[in-house]
Amino acid sequence: MKMELREIASLLNGEVEEGGDLVITGASGIKEAREGDITFLANPKYAPLLETTRAAAVIVEKGWELSCAKPLVRVENASLAFGALIERFGPKKIEFPPGVHPMAAVSPKASLGKDVHVGPFAVVEEGASIGDRSIVRSAVYIGHDAKVGADCHIYPNVTIRERCEIGDRVIIHGGTVIGSDGFGYVAVKGVHHKIPQIGRVVIEDDVEIGANVSIDRARFDRTIVRRGTKIDNLVQIAHNCDIGENSIIVAQVGISGSTSIGKNVILAGQVGVVGHVTIGDNTIIGAKGGVSKSIPPNSYYIGLPVMEAKQYKKTHAALSRLPDLAAKVKELERKLADLDRRLPGHAATEND
Amino acid sequence: MKMELREIASLLNGEVEEGGDLVITGASGIKEAREGDITFLANPKYAPLLETTRAAAVIVEKGWELSCAKPLVRVENASLAFGALIERFGPKKIEFPPGVHPMAAVSPKASLGKDVHVGPFAVVEEGASIGDRSIVRSAVYIGHDAKVGADCHIYPNVTIRERCEIGDRVIIHGGTVIGSDGFGYVAVKGVHHKIPQIGRVVIEDDVEIGANVSIDRARFDRTIVRRGTKIDNLVQIAHNCDIGENSIIVAQVGISGSTSIGKNVILAGQVGVVGHVTIGDNTIIGAKGGVSKSIPPNSYYIGLPVMEAKQYKKTHAALSRLPDLAAKVKELERKLADLDRRLPGHAATEND
Amino acid sequence: MKMELREIASLLNGEVEEGGDLVITGASGIKEAREGDITFLANPKYAPLLETTRAAAVIVEKGWELSCAKPLVRVENASLAFGALIERFGPKKIEFPPGVHPMAAVSPKASLGKDVHVGPFAVVEEGASIGDRSIVRSAVYIGHDAKVGADCHIYPNVTIRERCEIGDRVIIHGGTVIGSDGFGYVAVKGVHHKIPQIGRVVIEDDVEIGANVSIDRARFDRTIVRRGTKIDNLVQIAHNCDIGENSIIVAQVGISGSTSIGKNVILAGQVGVVGHVTIGDNTIIGAKGGVSKSIPPNSYYIGLPVMEAKQYKKTHAALSRLPDLAAKVKELERKLADLDRRLPGHAATEND
Repeated sequence: MKMELREIASLLNGEVEEGGDLVITGASGIKEAREGDITFLANPKYAPLLETTRAAAVIVEKGWELSCAKPLVRVENASLAFGALIERFGPKKIEFPPGVHPMAAVSPKASLGKDVHVGPFAVVEEGASIGDRSIVRSAVYIGHDAKVGADCHIYPNVTIRERCEIGDRVIIHGGTVIGSDGFGYVAVKGVHHKIPQIGRVVIEDDVEIGANVSIDRARFDRTIVRRGTKIDNLVQIAHNCDIGENSIIVAQVGISGSTSIGKNVILAGQVGVVGHVTIGDNTIIGAKGGVSKSIPPNSYYIGLPVMEAKQYKKTHAALSRLPDLAAKVKELERKLADLDRRLPGHAATEND
Repeated sequence: MKMELREIASLLNGEVEEGGDLVITGASGIKEAREGDITFLANPKYAPLLETTRAAAVIVEKGWELSCAKPLVRVENASLAFGALIERFGPKKIEFPPGVHPMAAVSPKASLGKDVHVGPFAVVEEGASIGDRSIVRSAVYIGHDAKVGADCHIYPNVTIRERCEIGDRVIIHGGTVIGSDGFGYVAVKGVHHKIPQIGRVVIEDDVEIGANVSIDRARFDRTIVRRGTKIDNLVQIAHNCDIGENSIIVAQVGISGSTSIGKNVILAGQVGVVGHVTIGDNTIIGAKGGVSKSIPPNSYYIGLPVMEAKQYKKTHAALSRLPDLAAKVKELERKLADLDRRLPGHAATEND
Repeated sequence: MKMELREIASLLNGEVEEGGDLVITGASGIKEAREGDITFLANPKYAPLLETTRAAAVIVEKGWELSCAKPLVRVENASLAFGALIERFGPKKIEFPPGVHPMAAVSPKASLGKDVHVGPFAVVEEGASIGDRSIVRSAVYIGHDAKVGADCHIYPNVTIRERCEIGDRVIIHGGTVIGSDGFGYVAVKGVHHKIPQIGRVVIEDDVEIGANVSIDRARFDRTIVRRGTKIDNLVQIAHNCDIGENSIIVAQVGISGSTSIGKNVILAGQVGVVGHVTIGDNTIIGAKGGVSKSIPPNSYYIGLPVMEAKQYKKTHAALSRLPDLAAKVKELERKLADLDRRLPGHAATEND
């Protein structure tokens, strides 16, 4: 694969000032780049890397002031533009041709759209439907009356249980389980009786879900992950949760039952959220935060249990000085006793 | 599906005061209910929902004092009664008919009980046995000499390794692994040598295990989960653990090797327990708690590391006032120096 | 299986002082041992168990001073020696004979070494290669151009995605996913655009990976787990991480993107590490620790966020006395006001 720099600029709706006839033979990260590669600068704070990279040319953003001996391609969003380019120079994309593998088990009562790929050992049950161009990989299970939209990619060993609904352009990575029973019991004399979980899970369009995630079906209604939200690996979402649009749920987060997460929320790694609370839009919860109550929108909370970030920082700064504080109090007690002794009218009975 | 309210009352061993001839056409949660639905009140504190629900009738408990314009069915346990009812009005239950799918790989030396269902791409190895009426779904793996009891439901993509033993009426959700090797090594000059893990896992009757759980086999003997215990998704149980009866292990809990958990214990979400300790019967550990020592029975512990709940609350209330406390100490130091200066016999050498 | 104690000693390069003609019929842990069993003492602090064990003989280390009525076999490393012995006395090892199961889907363009076992419903894609004597169990997925080395054991339901590389003697337990996409997006006006993840995962020789683990592929280059490192269940390793040699990553640890972990590091259970930091060689992070910055080598850190262990212990001891400290400060304020009133020259305006 070879492209002139000016062709690349044109492909990315970008501008090249000089070196337009340079021939680019690969694309790579700024640290990994080799001779002939094009790379990109994600953030002007990394500008010193322009000095050391072996790349032949660099994609940067319009308006960044940079001094660089190498030809620059200026675009609106460098990271995004580079993402588009990488498919040309990256490893050959694997094709999953339309068709059902002879060793798949697809019910004659399932409904498959145009150009669907179903891999070996996949199961598609009665009443299930799969939208156009979707890719269902090996050993995926799609339950009775479940719906998978168009242009989805469901990776190997995923389980999607009965009646769950997956939107368009959804990606689900290996080992994930959608629609397992919510965790609900009634205790009668110390014995736990299972509460039927007859609801389902709805995953809206453009959601991506990582590997080995669990999203439980609702007791009656639905657990929902709304449009554009991205979920990392090993996340737990309990029954009846409502996860808002365009949120980011980082690895190993756990969200308990009936909790609502707003739009554009970020839950950092290993956060835990109790049940029946609400986290407002645009809020960030720092890594390992323990959320035990509702959190307002546009906030930044940290800690276990979480506090507003400024309070957290003040508290934890004070905490790290706590041994000193204890020593100071001891010293104060000593001095005060000393003062007391030196005072006229000192009453021995009071302090001794 | 249609039933008169009086038929429902009779089915549930309940009582209906008025409206017995009302025709019920569905069953749903109190918030989701539509016209013609029957619903239930789980807890009298939610009584205000009786005013707003669209449900036609409500299941409540005998003895609750409630004013409600809608017909009530009074039963012993509303949640339990409703659970029994839901199977009549809920979505049609999926049947898994007895028989072995032609694309399953069942050893001729495995032993299958009466009316067992084995789905496509399931593997049942030599010497394994499956009890009457159990359902083994697609791509489940059941290892050599493993035993699954009667009336179990093993969901897709579950792995049960060799010699493990699963009781009756056990439910295991998708992606779970039972009997992986315990995590044990001997370090010799910085190199870790694997310690053989030749024990197994025993899961007793009426246990339910969530999705993507890992329960490791014992080094010699057995890791055991006792009767009636319920385990949520993404839980880790290490080798040689002993989990008591009727306990509740919430999502993403991790229990280290050789630890014993009592009966009727609740470990809330993301709790971690170190190895070789005991948690007594009826004890509750709050969410995200870090248990680093044995905990007595009938206790409630919270925090990282866990403290008895009352002490935790006192400590954390004090912690949130810590910046104020530091300011107070500073003020005390100032005042004390001031007093000292005003004292007769002030010695400049002492404090200056 | 029967062996004389002297044969066992000779097998283990050990020494037996008396009782060499004793016949041993089994091998077991010191607590579980029955008559006729041989057992071992892992650590001299457990010496009192020598009094109570039912075992006929005990493997101990040269140089330990022990008084024991039972015959002892003295070796270099008791645990290691016992591991070697257990294979003789333990349950019969399951054989996975060479050959491809007729219900596996192996591409004719995949390359299989000598004596490879491929189980039912396994998928080996075009360009993939599997080394000599490796065992690929049921429903394992091995992607395009992926490499698995020699003498590996890949347990059921594992997913290894395209171009990933697994060394020799690697063990991967059930449900684990290697090479899922890194979690990376560019936000443009609140919408998250996926960043292509075109790198791969490299797992070096002698690594063991537990059940339901996720290791993401790099954005460009590689995520790497180096030689001899052992990873427990449900661990998350994000894109571009570099995990050093002979480290121990305990269950439910999460490591964020581009972080480097040194050699011989121990991350205890449920530790979380932020992205783009380094943990030095030989460092230990205590259970549930939250690492938010780089940590030097040869250290021991604990807490949330982590502190050097000594500081942590001091701080947390002070924390547990914090309610007392607050009470002391209140008392000091009272006494100081009292002193102030008793002072000659007391100015009412100052303190009242």
